[in-house]
Amino acid sequence: MNPARLRKLRYAMVGGGRDGFIGAIHRHAMALDQRYELVAGALSSTPDKARASGKDLGLADDRNHGSWRDLLADELQRPPEERIDLVSIVTPNHVHHEVAHAFADAGFHVVCDKPLVHTSAQAQSLVDIVAQRGTVFGVTYNYTGYPMVRQAREMVAGGVLGPLRKVIVEYNQGWLATALDDNKQAGWRTDPARSGIAGAIGDIGSHAENLMHTVTGLEIESLCADLTSFVPGRKVDDDGNLLLRFAGGARGVLIASQIEVGCENDLRLRVFGENGSLEWHQEDPNRLIHAPIDGPRVTLTRGSPWLGEAAKKATRTPAGHPEAFIEAFANVYMGVANDIHARLATGQPAARSEADYPRVEDGARGVRFIEKTVESSKSDLKWTPFN
Amino acid sequence: MNPARLRKLRYAMVGGGRDGFIGAIHRHAMALDQRYELVAGALSSTPDKARASGKDLGLADDRNHGSWRDLLADELQRPPEERIDLVSIVTPNHVHHEVAHAFADAGFHVVCDKPLVHTSAQAQSLVDIVAQRGTVFGVTYNYTGYPMVRQAREMVAGGVLGPLRKVIVEYNQGWLATALDDNKQAGWRTDPARSGIAGAIGDIGSHAENLMHTVTGLEIESLCADLTSFVPGRKVDDDGNLLLRFAGGARGVLIASQIEVGCENDLRLRVFGENGSLEWHQEDPNRLIHAPIDGPRVTLTRGSPWLGEAAKKATRTPAGHPEAFIEAFANVYMGVANDIHARLATGQPAARSEADYPRVEDGARGVRFIEKTVESSKSDLKWTPFN
Amino acid sequence: MNPARLRKLRYAMVGGGRDGFIGAIHRHAMALDQRYELVAGALSSTPDKARASGKDLGLADDRNHGSWRDLLADELQRPPEERIDLVSIVTPNHVHHEVAHAFADAGFHVVCDKPLVHTSAQAQSLVDIVAQRGTVFGVTYNYTGYPMVRQAREMVAGGVLGPLRKVIVEYNQGWLATALDDNKQAGWRTDPARSGIAGAIGDIGSHAENLMHTVTGLEIESLCADLTSFVPGRKVDDDGNLLLRFAGGARGVLIASQIEVGCENDLRLRVFGENGSLEWHQEDPNRLIHAPIDGPRVTLTRGSPWLGEAAKKATRTPAGHPEAFIEAFANVYMGVANDIHARLATGQPAARSEADYPRVEDGARGVRFIEKTVESSKSDLKWTPFN
Amino acid sequence: MNPARLRKLRYAMVGGGRDGFIGAIHRHAMALDQRYELVAGALSSTPDKARASGKDLGLADDRNHGSWRDLLADELQRPPEERIDLVSIVTPNHVHHEVAHAFADAGFHVVCDKPLVHTSAQAQSLVDIVAQRGTVFGVTYNYTGYPMVRQAREMVAGGVLGPLRKVIVEYNQGWLATALDDNKQAGWRTDPARSGIAGAIGDIGSHAENLMHTVTGLEIESLCADLTSFVPGRKVDDDGNLLLRFAGGARGVLIASQIEVGCENDLRLRVFGENGSLEWHQEDPNRLIHAPIDGPRVTLTRGSPWLGEAAKKATRTPAGHPEAFIEAFANVYMGVANDIHARLATGQPAARSEADYPRVEDGARGVRFIEKTVESSKSDLKWTPFN
Repeated sequence: MNPARLRKLRYAMVGGGRDGFIGAIHRHAMALDQRYELVAGALSSTPDKARASGKDLGLADDRNHGSWRDLLADELQRPPEERIDLVSIVTPNHVHHEVAHAFADAGFHVVCDKPLVHTSAQAQSLVDIVAQRGTVFGVTYNYTGYPMVRQAREMVAGGVLGPLRKVIVEYNQGWLATALDDNKQAGWRTDPARSGIAGAIGDIGSHAENLMHTVTGLEIESLCADLTSFVPGRKVDDDGNLLLRFAGGARGVLIASQIEVGCENDLRLRVFGENGSLEWHQEDPNRLIHAPIDGPRVTLTRGSPWLGEAAKKATRTPAGHPEAFIEAFANVYMGVANDIHARLATGQPAARSEADYPRVEDGARGVRFIEKTVESSKSDLKWTPFN
Repeated sequence: MNPARLRKLRYAMVGGGRDGFIGAIHRHAMALDQRYELVAGALSSTPDKARASGKDLGLADDRNHGSWRDLLADELQRPPEERIDLVSIVTPNHVHHEVAHAFADAGFHVVCDKPLVHTSAQAQSLVDIVAQRGTVFGVTYNYTGYPMVRQAREMVAGGVLGPLRKVIVEYNQGWLATALDDNKQAGWRTDPARSGIAGAIGDIGSHAENLMHTVTGLEIESLCADLTSFVPGRKVDDDGNLLLRFAGGARGVLIASQIEVGCENDLRLRVFGENGSLEWHQEDPNRLIHAPIDGPRVTLTRGSPWLGEAAKKATRTPAGHPEAFIEAFANVYMGVANDIHARLATGQPAARSEADYPRVEDGARGVRFIEKTVESSKSDLKWTPFN
Repeated sequence: MNPARLRKLRYAMVGGGRDGFIGAIHRHAMALDQRYELVAGALSSTPDKARASGKDLGLADDRNHGSWRDLLADELQRPPEERIDLVSIVTPNHVHHEVAHAFADAGFHVVCDKPLVHTSAQAQSLVDIVAQRGTVFGVTYNYTGYPMVRQAREMVAGGVLGPLRKVIVEYNQGWLATALDDNKQAGWRTDPARSGIAGAIGDIGSHAENLMHTVTGLEIESLCADLTSFVPGRKVDDDGNLLLRFAGGARGVLIASQIEVGCENDLRLRVFGENGSLEWHQEDPNRLIHAPIDGPRVTLTRGSPWLGEAAKKATRTPAGHPEAFIEAFANVYMGVANDIHARLATGQPAARSEADYPRVEDGARGVRFIEKTVESSKSDLKWTPFN
Repeated sequence: MNPARLRKLRYAMVGGGRDGFIGAIHRHAMALDQRYELVAGALSSTPDKARASGKDLGLADDRNHGSWRDLLADELQRPPEERIDLVSIVTPNHVHHEVAHAFADAGFHVVCDKPLVHTSAQAQSLVDIVAQRGTVFGVTYNYTGYPMVRQAREMVAGGVLGPLRKVIVEYNQGWLATALDDNKQAGWRTDPARSGIAGAIGDIGSHAENLMHTVTGLEIESLCADLTSFVPGRKVDDDGNLLLRFAGGARGVLIASQIEVGCENDLRLRVFGENGSLEWHQEDPNRLIHAPIDGPRVTLTRGSPWLGEAAKKATRTPAGHPEAFIEAFANVYMGVANDIHARLATGQPAARSEADYPRVEDGARGVRFIEKTVESSKSDLKWTPFN
C-alpha cells in the first residue's frame, strides 16, 4: 500500500487558534507527509476568536465553528464522504476530557495532546469508550516519534543491554524561572483549574515518564517524589525530583523542572543494563550513544545503515541531514494515519509496527503517574505504591 | 498579510519520481507550511515512470505528463485560475537548463535545484530571461534556510565580527568512498554527462561556496584548487581542497570531499574577523558559536530571545525544540512563496527581508565557482582569477 | 614569597605500595610542583611488601619501614632538620583513623585520602586532635582542586547565580557492573570491613557531596536515599540515588553509581540559581558553562582572562593547553604546602585564599553524609535529618 | 627494570628563566615522573636574570651560571658523578642551534624545544653531530606524547584505516589577532631575528606538520602555501594555509593561524583512509574518534582496555581521570629518560617502543617544512617540491 495513493484523511481541530503554539505544531506535523487535510474546526473556546482563527486557516464558513459542540453536531449530520475522519484536540488540558469523550463516543478517531486528562477516572472513561467504539485514539507524546528513541526501544526489547538496572530520565527547562504573569503559554500551565493538580510534573514530567516507559517497558512499582514551587505565588509545582522503583528490581531517577535557568527543552534519557547502556538527548536527537560492556562507546546516527526497522520507518532524510521536533511529531501522526487507513481499507487495525504511536492507555498511565507523584510529594512515607 | 489566508500556490514538479531522494524532500518542504499544492508534473524523463510516479502523488491524469514539454504545453493552454504558479525542477543537473529556460521564458516562476546548470553561458541565459520576464527564480541552496545561518549573516553584515580576515568552509562526506556502481544517487553524480565537469566540487562544493558567500558576502578574487578522484574508475573528482583569496584581502580554505569515511553530511563554516568569530555546523544546526575578542565564547541557540529578525522569521518552534533540514528547506520555499504572493497581490517583488531565498544570480556564481575550480585544478599556476 | 626558594617539604607516605593506584597519583601530584620530597614510608600493611615498595621509590633503608608505627617511632627520634613535615595517608579506608590520629597527635601535619574514616565519632576525634595540636590536616577531595570548580565556587559566592534553588550532582561509573572478584581496587572497596558501611556512596558519593558543598556552600537539612546492591553477592551498595533538601529551601538530587556501564569517571555538577546556572563535567574539566537568565550560554575556559583569582591561582598553563586530574590533585597539595610553609615561616596559618584545600572538617562532614545516607536508605520515612 | 629504582638523571636548563612560560612547563613535565633533577642552569641570556632565576629554582651558586658557555665549561670540568646527563634547551628559537651543537659535541644528551633551528643547514649539522657522538637528542614536539595520538599512530601503522587518502591538520589560535606589542611571548615569536623566517607557520605550523607525520608516516612530496600577515606592522606570517600532496597519492590540508579569534590552542587532526578515519582534538585529548567504513563511529578513550600498547605505556591514570598537556609533555621526557638510562645501563639505545620521543631528524624535517612553506608562499607556481 503506497500511502501517497490513499486519499488524505479529513480532520477537524479543536483548540489551536491564534496565539496558540501547539496547534500550529500539530498542523505542521500533519501537513509534512501530506496524509491529512484540515476541513473543519472549533479553534478556540471564545467563539469570535475561534472563527477568526478558522478563517486564517482557510476553513469554509460552514465548517468553521464557535464551539466544539457545534462542530460535533455539524459533522454528525454530514454525509460520510464529507465527514471528518478524526479530530485533533489541542486545547488546554482541562478541556481534553469532555471533547475527547464526546468525539470518541460518536465514533470518530481522536488524537489528543498530553497530559490526557486530569484524573484517572476520566482517563478510564476514555479507555472504556475507545474500547467500546473500536476507534483510534492517539496521544501526542511526540518525543516517542524520534527515530533514535525507537531505535533505543528496539535495542532494549532485543536484549542488547541485558536485564535493566537503572534509568535516569530528565526534562530540564528554565523558562518558568520567573513569574511570567502575562505569558499565555505560562498562564494556563500554572493555573490549577486548567493545568490540573500538577505544574511541571504534568506538563513535562509526564513526557519524561512516557519516554522512559516507551523505551524500557519498565513498570513503576513505587515512587518517592519531592515537588516544589519555587516562584513566589505559583500554585503548582515548578520543580520535581523522584526516586523510582520498578517491578523486577530496577531503580530510577526522574527529574522534571521548569526553573532550571539555561535549560531550553532538555529532555534526556539514560538506560543502564547489565550488558550496556544507552543515552539520548532530545536537543541532539539524531544521535544515540550505545556503550556495550565489552567495548568502546558507539554513536549511532539516524539514517545510518546499522539501525533497526523501527528507526528506518521513522526516517525521511539520509544520515547527516538532521530531522528534528516536527518530524518526530509527524511520525506520531503517520502512525495514526496508517492505523486509520488500515481500518478504512480492511476494517482491522494496522499492525503495531505500522501504527507506531502512543495510545489512550499510555495517556491513562501518564495521568496515574501525575496523581501518584503529587500524592507521594505530600506523604511522609518514602514509597508510594504506583498501583 | 496573513499568509494562511492566501490561496495555496499551484505547482508542477519536473523530476522527483519514484526512487528519487531530493524530489520527496522538496515536497515535504513545500507541504510543511501549507503554502503550496502539487497539481501537475512530469516526474521522470522516462514517460511510464513519470506517470506512475504522478499517480503515486495523486495527480489527476490530465496533469500527469510523460515529459516536461507536454507539461509546459498543457499548462500554457489552461485558464489562469488552473494554471500553475511555478515549476519546481528537481531533475539531474544536465536537464536543469532547458527546463528552467523554457518555463521562465513562458513566464512561469521557477525553483531549480543546484548546481544550477553546467556552464556559465547557460547560467547567463537564465539570468537574462528572468530579468526579461520579471519572474521569480529560486535556487535551492537549502542550507541558507537554516535560522542560525541567517543569524550569522546578520551578525557579519552588522559588523559584529569587524572586518573579516579568514573563512574556513568544509563539506565533508564519506558515502562515495567506494564505487557504489549500482547506487542511483551515486550514479548520476559521478557521470560527467549528467553531473557536469565536476563531481564533489559540483555536488557539495557549490553548497559550501554558497554558504560562505551568503554568510560573509565576500567575493572570491582568485582561487587555487587541488581536485582528486580517489576511487578507481571514477571520472569526476571526489575530493577537492581550495585556497581562496577574497577581494579586500581576506583568505579562505574550502574543503569538499565525498571520500572522507565517517562523515555524513558535515557542512560547517568558520568565519574570523578582527573582533570575533562565528562557527556553525549543519549537523548541529540549532547552535551558532560566537567568540568575541573581548569575552568568552557564547552559544546562540535557535529560538532564543537574543537573535535577530532574520533568524526569528525562519523559526517555527521554541528554543530547545530543534528544527532541522526539512525546515531549512521549507524556509527557502517560504521566501519564494512570499515573493510570488507579493507579486500576485501588488505586481511588485516582496522586500528582500520577506523573500529570503537564493536567486538565479547565486546559481550563476555557483556555476562559475565550479568552472574556475576545475580550471585551477588543471593549472600549474597557483592563482586562477575568479572573474 | 617565591615558593620555589623555599625548601622542599619532607614527607612520609603510609600505604601506596606496589600495585596501588592512588599512592602513585599522590606522588605524581606532590612531585609536579617540586614542593615536596619523599623521605620515608611504610608503604604497605605487609612488611615485606612495604619495604620492597620503598626500595622501588628510592627510600633509604633506615627510613623504609614495615609498619606505620615503626615509621612514627623513628621520625620522633630524628632531629628536626631530618624529620618529616607531614605524612600522606593513602591506605584503604579502615586504616585511616588510627594512622591519622597518631601522626596528628604527635604534631605532624597530615594529608589523608577520603572518605576520611568510618564513623562520625572517629572523625570528631580527628577534628579535636587537629584543633589541639594546631596542625595542618588536608583531605584529598581532589576534584575541588580543578580550576573551574574554584571558578564556580567563586561565582556562586559572588552572587552571580542569585539565591540557589537546585543542585544536581552525579558521579557515574560503570567499572563495578560485574563482580571483579580478583581486582585489587574492587576488592577493598566492596568489603565492608575495609570500605566501611557504604560502597559506591562512600567511595564516590562522598566526592559528589564534597563537590556540591564546596561549590555551593549549601548545608543539607534532610535527605532521602535509595541504595541498592545490584551485583549478586556484593555486600555494599553499588548504586545510590538521593533527594536532598537544603537549609534555606533549595532542593537537590545526588546520584552515585558504579554499575552504570559505559560511564568512566563521570562526576558532574549543575547548580541553578534564580539568576543563572553553572554546569561542570570532570571529564571535560577545562570548561565551565554559565547560563545567565538574561543572555545566551557562555563557555568559560581555564586560563582565559575573564576568570577570577581562585581559578587563576590554580592554573599552570595557558588557555587551550588542558590541565587535568593530576594537576587538580596537585592543587590540593599546593594549598597544603602553602599552609605548612606559612606556619614554618610565621607560625601562623596561611590565608584561606592561599591555602585552598579541603580540611578535616570537610572530611568529617563527608563521613556524616555516608552515615545518614545509609540510615535513610534503611528507613521508611521519606526524610532523614542530616544533623 | 623498574625505573623508580634508577638514579634520577641530572639536568641543566638553558633558558626558561623568570617570566618564561615554556621553561616552567618543561620543569613540571620533568618533575612529574620523578626521573630528573635540576642541578645546574643558565636560565637567561641576561646574566643577572639568569642567576636570579636559578636562585628561584634552588640551584647551588656554583652551578647557577650567567651564560650557557659558562655552564658548559663548568660541567666539563666536573667529575662524572656530578656532571649533568643532559641539557634541556628552552630558549627562543635563534639560540637553539649554537647551544645544542655545543652540548651535543661535548657528548651531552640534549632535549631541545621546537622549531629546532632556523635553517636546514643548521639542522643537518645537528643531525651529523648527534650521529657522530651517539648521544640522545629529543625535540619537544610535545603533542606526540598524548596517549591517543600514539593510539592513532598505532592504528594507522596497523592498517586499521587501509591505505590513506587524505589528512586535514589544523592548529587554530587567536591570541595574536592584535599586535600585543608588550607581550613577551608575542614579542620574540613575531621578531624574525629570533623566530626565524616564519611566524605562525614556525611556531605552530611545525607542530601540525609533526603531528601529521607522526600519526600517518606520510611524506610530503610537494606543497602549496598561502601565508599572510594580517596584523599591521607584523613582520612574519600570522596565518598560513597549505595544500599538500604526499608520496603515494594522498592529499592534505594544513591550517595554522594565530589570528583566529576565539581559538585557544585548537590543534586537531583528521586522517581518512580507504577503510576508516580517525579524528583527534588536542583540547579534548582523552578521546579519539574512529569511524570504520562498515560500522558506526566509535569513541576510544584513554585508559580503556581496548587500546594498544603505545597508548597504555603513556598512561598514568584510569579511564575517565583525564590526563592532559603536562602529562603528554612528560611522556616525551619519559622516552628520553628511558633512552638515557638504557645507554647508562647497557651502552645501547633503548628500543623505539620504550624510547618514544621525537628525534633530531624530526626536528630537521620540521625546519625543512618551514623553509619550503615560506618558499612556496612566495612562488607563483602551484607546487613546490619538498625535497
